[in-house]
Amino acid sequence: MSTTPTAAILVIGNEILSGRTHDINVKYIAECLKKVGIQLLEVRIIPDVEAMIIETVNALRKRYVYVFTTGGIGATHDDITAASVAKAFNRALIEHEGALAALVVHYQERLNDNRRRMALMPADCGYIANPVSGAWGFFVENVYCLAGMPSVMQAMFNEILPTLKGGAPFISQTITCDLVEGDIAHALAAIQENHPSVQIGSYPFYRKPPDIGVSFVVQGQDKAAVLAATDAVNQMVIVFGGTLFKAESADGASC
Amino acid sequence: MSTTPTAAILVIGNEILSGRTHDINVKYIAECLKKVGIQLLEVRIIPDVEAMIIETVNALRKRYVYVFTTGGIGATHDDITAASVAKAFNRALIEHEGALAALVVHYQERLNDNRRRMALMPADCGYIANPVSGAWGFFVENVYCLAGMPSVMQAMFNEILPTLKGGAPFISQTITCDLVEGDIAHALAAIQENHPSVQIGSYPFYRKPPDIGVSFVVQGQDKAAVLAATDAVNQMVIVFGGTLFKAESADGASC
Repeated sequence: MSTTPTAAILVIGNEILSGRTHDINVKYIAECLKKVGIQLLEVRIIPDVEAMIIETVNALRKRYVYVFTTGGIGATHDDITAASVAKAFNRALIEHEGALAALVVHYQERLNDNRRRMALMPADCGYIANPVSGAWGFFVENVYCLAGMPSVMQAMFNEILPTLKGGAPFISQTITCDLVEGDIAHALAAIQENHPSVQIGSYPFYRKPPDIGVSFVVQGQDKAAVLAATDAVNQMVIVFGGTLFKAESADGASC
Repeated sequence: MSTTPTAAILVIGNEILSGRTHDINVKYIAECLKKVGIQLLEVRIIPDVEAMIIETVNALRKRYVYVFTTGGIGATHDDITAASVAKAFNRALIEHEGALAALVVHYQERLNDNRRRMALMPADCGYIANPVSGAWGFFVENVYCLAGMPSVMQAMFNEILPTLKGGAPFISQTITCDLVEGDIAHALAAIQENHPSVQIGSYPFYRKPPDIGVSFVVQGQDKAAVLAATDAVNQMVIVFGGTLFKAESADGASC
């Protein structure tokens, strides 16, 4: 696992911290990164405050192979991601020729000074095409700056995903049963010890009785190891007299 | 605003970073904090890794007035929050008498070594009662450690909320209309400049045409200032020939 590239997500936006907007971008990016063998190790959510953006971008970009930011690249006064990321890298904020051309095509006679602001990017950055709404994202070194609106963010992320260098895909298996954690924790810990190359998570659920139970998630990059550990968990459920529920269907991200 | 207490949330859990589980605790806590005048300034999501928990708890507790952690306080091997927080504070991990008594009452003859582990807490911590499933949370100084399961987390958070010292409640008004950001960004920026004690956010939406528009959110702790800025935004919408949509209903957190 030591050669698996790492990543962090930085969500920039007062609307998430205020509880107004429920972020769904983290889940999408997380699912996509697993498919290409990149390990998401941290997410931070911060407000639209320049000093915090600069500090956090600089902390994350030094620590992780990839950093993905979402939010703050629109046309209004609270969109300060491009200017802040430029400062984090000590680069000028300049009008990106290609981004401006894309805005001209998209907005035509509706292109005004407000919209033209969306072509301002850190000098010498790369661009991320936006097939949905015309305003490009950008990247500087290992920091990729994406839109906050989920449909746009997903389109941008799908643009860059093939360019990222990952490792073996993460594979996960979920086993759901009607046992409760407190009855099997010691047996599950023993399985984890015997299968150190996988991670086994235990996620209980208490809905309305009798809908009480637990899901075990076995995850790793070595398919044989994941399947062996999954077998061991299935056996454990049987030994403890549990009933296995039907496997959950995977309706993951479209990347 | 300088006297408004600050807060951070630390979500501990591989299941969020893997995309398996969609966190809903941040939104709940965020909404509750607004009501009691505490400003949520940062959220971090990290895996069940001791070194990261220790480092992050220590970073956040020095920076913010309140820190709330969610996740990792159950009965299985991947529940390492209590042990990690004890290490962050250089405290021993001991069996909490009251927490054990609560487990005895809740589980009776089903109390075993696995479940008893849920009474292990940092020495001299305070406890957070759990009216849902018997296993208590705890707090050390300004760090409050809550369950990850939303129903339990909410019950625990509601227990501690009356004990937190806040400021004036945050009030927010949402104005939704059929204008687009690029047409009004300059006018909106002028309103923000004229009303510096409030924050004005702009959140466009592109669903299927013609369902395209923008929501403006005016937020602050001074009610008169929030209403004055809201008035100014409403006027702006009219001046630009926009149609106001019906106000969204607030179906916020039950705290």
